[in-house]
Amino acid sequence: MIFYDCATAPSPRRARIFIAEKQAGQAFDLEVVQIDLRNGEQLGSEFKAINPSCTVPVLALDDGTKLTENLGIAAYLDAKFPQPPLLGQSDVERGLVLNWNAAIEIQGLMPVAEALRNSSPAMAERAITGPDNFPQIPQLAERGLVRLKLFFDRLDAHLEGRDFIATDRFSLADITAVVAVDFARVVKVTPQEHHVNLRRWRQALEGRPSLAT
Amino acid sequence: MIFYDCATAPSPRRARIFIAEKQAGQAFDLEVVQIDLRNGEQLGSEFKAINPSCTVPVLALDDGTKLTENLGIAAYLDAKFPQPPLLGQSDVERGLVLNWNAAIEIQGLMPVAEALRNSSPAMAERAITGPDNFPQIPQLAERGLVRLKLFFDRLDAHLEGRDFIATDRFSLADITAVVAVDFARVVKVTPQEHHVNLRRWRQALEGRPSLAT
Repeated sequence: MIFYDCATAPSPRRARIFIAEKQAGQAFDLEVVQIDLRNGEQLGSEFKAINPSCTVPVLALDDGTKLTENLGIAAYLDAKFPQPPLLGQSDVERGLVLNWNAAIEIQGLMPVAEALRNSSPAMAERAITGPDNFPQIPQLAERGLVRLKLFFDRLDAHLEGRDFIATDRFSLADITAVVAVDFARVVKVTPQEHHVNLRRWRQALEGRPSLAT
Repeated sequence: MIFYDCATAPSPRRARIFIAEKQAGQAFDLEVVQIDLRNGEQLGSEFKAINPSCTVPVLALDDGTKLTENLGIAAYLDAKFPQPPLLGQSDVERGLVLNWNAAIEIQGLMPVAEALRNSSPAMAERAITGPDNFPQIPQLAERGLVRLKLFFDRLDAHLEGRDFIATDRFSLADITAVVAVDFARVVKVTPQEHHVNLRRWRQALEGRPSLAT
């Protein structure tokens, strides 16, 4: 398998953590190729032939299949390498993990991306990932910041009395949430003093080897 | 189980089709409660106690768990009622179904929602679902239309030589795509004459009982 990555970007970090968790459960080989997003390598013809959507992460399987979305990569790896289970085990757990993952993508990851991509001078005309250019919409950057702060409040309230986001063990939902919370620093949003539960949850994950990848 | 639905809205239609496919494989009971989105019932205290995010669909399980996202509902039902498999069977199929589902949500469903919610007079201040009001951003409506047309072109190209979106059988990815394509009518985007593959795929689904629910 070949994993197309970019060490500095949040979206491939989700896959990177997922892969590291699985490799701790069962060793498997993976060739890692870094794509230089800052210099637009994802928009070049070579990478477009791998993923026409011009995004990382991509996991290229040995049979030629290309998985180009975090959820696709997660579903494949969790089915192929069941340990540790990261998408839940019982039917209710399976529901809860993808439920929280979706909620965090919409309420957390998307607002950070909107806040950054619609304000950063380096991303003018690149307000959306993909092959087509779209101009920035400043109002969308402002709205992203407002929504991001609401997300921190809600995540903090949800984590009251909980060790993990979706079930009683670390799952894909924790991976997505930790990437969203860490990435929010780029638009100067961080957990505040009163986010006691959010800070406790994040602190407890600090020593987890997969997060350092 | 209780299914909180709204017969006229696209998001619960995804769950409705999924449930109908599963009930054809194995009969199970479900109480259906209609939530009147047009009159703001989702924002009232009674429904907020069920789903603080104020959205449908919601599937309330017998143990009290509330699943409030389409992917959460799909993952739970597919694990509990395996026939027919709608999330893939082999590990590669499982990857492909969630991969395409995610791509269609981002490239198709989101642009339709952005185009509608940022332009409809009935949705002033309701540019995003949820408990908080956000004003419309007219540029986002325009961008949604542009992206939606690109999505129709890409979906048409992808369906060349294919009967279904992700694998060789009907899956969650087809459900999400059919809801996105049908819903696009609300902003006057429909498959064009030259979208031969897209029209063939949609036409072949016409007689499928679950789509009529």
